[in-house]
Amino acid sequence: MSIHPLDRSRLPALRRLLLDKAMPPNSLGRLSELALHLAMIKEVPFSSLSLLLFAGDHGVIKEGVTHSPQEITYQQCLNFARGGGACSLFASLNGATLSVIDVGVNHQFSPFDGVLDEKVGFGTRNFLEGTAMDLSACRKAMEAGRRSVGKAVEDGCDVVAFGEMGVGNTTSASAVAAALTGQPVRCLTGKGSGLSDAELKHKVEVIERGLALHPSRDAVSVLCNLGGYEIAAIAGAMLEASERSLPILLDGFVVTSAALAAFHLDHAITDYLIPCHRSGMQGHQAILDAIGLDAPLLDLSMQLGEGTGALAAWPLVRLASRLLFQMTSFCDANVTDSTHLLSELGLV
Amino acid sequence: MSIHPLDRSRLPALRRLLLDKAMPPNSLGRLSELALHLAMIKEVPFSSLSLLLFAGDHGVIKEGVTHSPQEITYQQCLNFARGGGACSLFASLNGATLSVIDVGVNHQFSPFDGVLDEKVGFGTRNFLEGTAMDLSACRKAMEAGRRSVGKAVEDGCDVVAFGEMGVGNTTSASAVAAALTGQPVRCLTGKGSGLSDAELKHKVEVIERGLALHPSRDAVSVLCNLGGYEIAAIAGAMLEASERSLPILLDGFVVTSAALAAFHLDHAITDYLIPCHRSGMQGHQAILDAIGLDAPLLDLSMQLGEGTGALAAWPLVRLASRLLFQMTSFCDANVTDSTHLLSELGLV
Repeated sequence: MSIHPLDRSRLPALRRLLLDKAMPPNSLGRLSELALHLAMIKEVPFSSLSLLLFAGDHGVIKEGVTHSPQEITYQQCLNFARGGGACSLFASLNGATLSVIDVGVNHQFSPFDGVLDEKVGFGTRNFLEGTAMDLSACRKAMEAGRRSVGKAVEDGCDVVAFGEMGVGNTTSASAVAAALTGQPVRCLTGKGSGLSDAELKHKVEVIERGLALHPSRDAVSVLCNLGGYEIAAIAGAMLEASERSLPILLDGFVVTSAALAAFHLDHAITDYLIPCHRSGMQGHQAILDAIGLDAPLLDLSMQLGEGTGALAAWPLVRLASRLLFQMTSFCDANVTDSTHLLSELGLV
Repeated sequence: MSIHPLDRSRLPALRRLLLDKAMPPNSLGRLSELALHLAMIKEVPFSSLSLLLFAGDHGVIKEGVTHSPQEITYQQCLNFARGGGACSLFASLNGATLSVIDVGVNHQFSPFDGVLDEKVGFGTRNFLEGTAMDLSACRKAMEAGRRSVGKAVEDGCDVVAFGEMGVGNTTSASAVAAALTGQPVRCLTGKGSGLSDAELKHKVEVIERGLALHPSRDAVSVLCNLGGYEIAAIAGAMLEASERSLPILLDGFVVTSAALAAFHLDHAITDYLIPCHRSGMQGHQAILDAIGLDAPLLDLSMQLGEGTGALAAWPLVRLASRLLFQMTSFCDANVTDSTHLLSELGLV
């Protein structure tokens, strides 16, 4: 399948429809622009968000790039699946369904844990000691991502978002972003869950050594060499979602690095990405810029991951998607339309 | 009654409670700060928002400060009450109740219109021809605001927001803001529902003449001389809400000018104000600054009024208010707490 670019020829008609709504022109600012974007994807009010949270472990943590022990990855997956995480709370309050999907956690979950099994491996290799994963594993992870989107659509979702869990994954994400943008590693690397300045410097050096060891800049090779199972799964899932013409609520740093890889595989994906929040992590805006995306809806210095930024923005997207379909027009509402005058005066 | 200042001595204990939650420290950025602020107001998850939308007409429109005819005020009130407005849609999607309250519309509503009757007058006088309203009318409007908050609390709300409808009310709001801040009118006046540059210049001149005619800078006098029934009602409602220790979701330009008047009557109100969105209207940030408020949660160039900015931000506030009470701790979730290490290293 391929991604359908948006039909921009509908834009003037949609804009007129919005101008007819019983409110002053352009008075909803970026929500109005989002309403038009969403309507170009599909002219319906979107109502059902599925958050697919992919989890995987990262061999590069052996290099001391994080304070968090690896066991936190599987422990948090269990916590999320039991409803105890921030992502669980955000999903439940904002009316989204959450699926926690193991693609590469270094732990054997039981079938009763509530974690979906798409396991490709037990954590990646340390990318300073070889490739993070083989090509076949990378393809399997991307397929797992695609399959998960297919299931979510079968279950009735009409919007998707992706979250991630994986101790060390900001290191892999920075490495992927630096390889694909060509920008300096230090501009794309943050303190993750809390590093000192000296520790951040070490993290940057580890990534720089990884980039030197793995010179290919082809997107799939970059995912294999420097990425993670969950990053590859999200890249595959995003390609599937955009081929199915679903709006994708784009979360923060790690998920956006996966979007960058997907973008390198098919530039048309951009039409389906809705940037939801600007992460507090150093370099997130640079990755958004590299994909050519607008400023995100929220800018709250959040940097938790788990898809929480996308979940936090979902009510805004849901509102925007209703403006064209559930607001009355001046005519329906018996409200005098003085905006025609503005239009004659060239003010709108 | 008086407003209880927040008990800031609880802050260290609340901050420790938040640090125990199973996520890296400070990873929810401004939502974490908001969680602490809300918990100092009351240590509960907030769940029930009531939007009180006050409507009134403005005599100053005779001076040609807006393109919108006055009839739009009552027409929109009917539209909102029937569920057709942006505020109706936002309230229904985001789980808030909406009350449309006539305090000064130049129209006689029928009891079957769904518009609540707290009418004090049929629109203000043109403030270039006298005071906008008498002192007794201003006090009645403020009392109507207070009474409406009391009813909302009886009906079970634990958070309030205020919206407004009134053709010409950005002119009155700018006049109130300029009188109370002492800042130049041009810095506090925007194009409202769509003025040309020349028309904006005229609007500024009208307001400057109003300020010269009415030299008193006492807050109640300013409301009488230059304000509007809905602005006075909102100022009264905010005092009542903060006396009752309710969080107030602060909307955009007009509502914030009412907050400024309330702030001049009792500075302690600031503790209960949650700035929700930065309006696209020129001067909104200056009024927020004058009240001493943080940057708003949303910055989407919205400038519709009707309380839509507060309604759009309500899901974020609702999320923040749950973090302390509905997220698992590291201990409850069986997740290894590596943040104690960060704490020992002085990194949090």
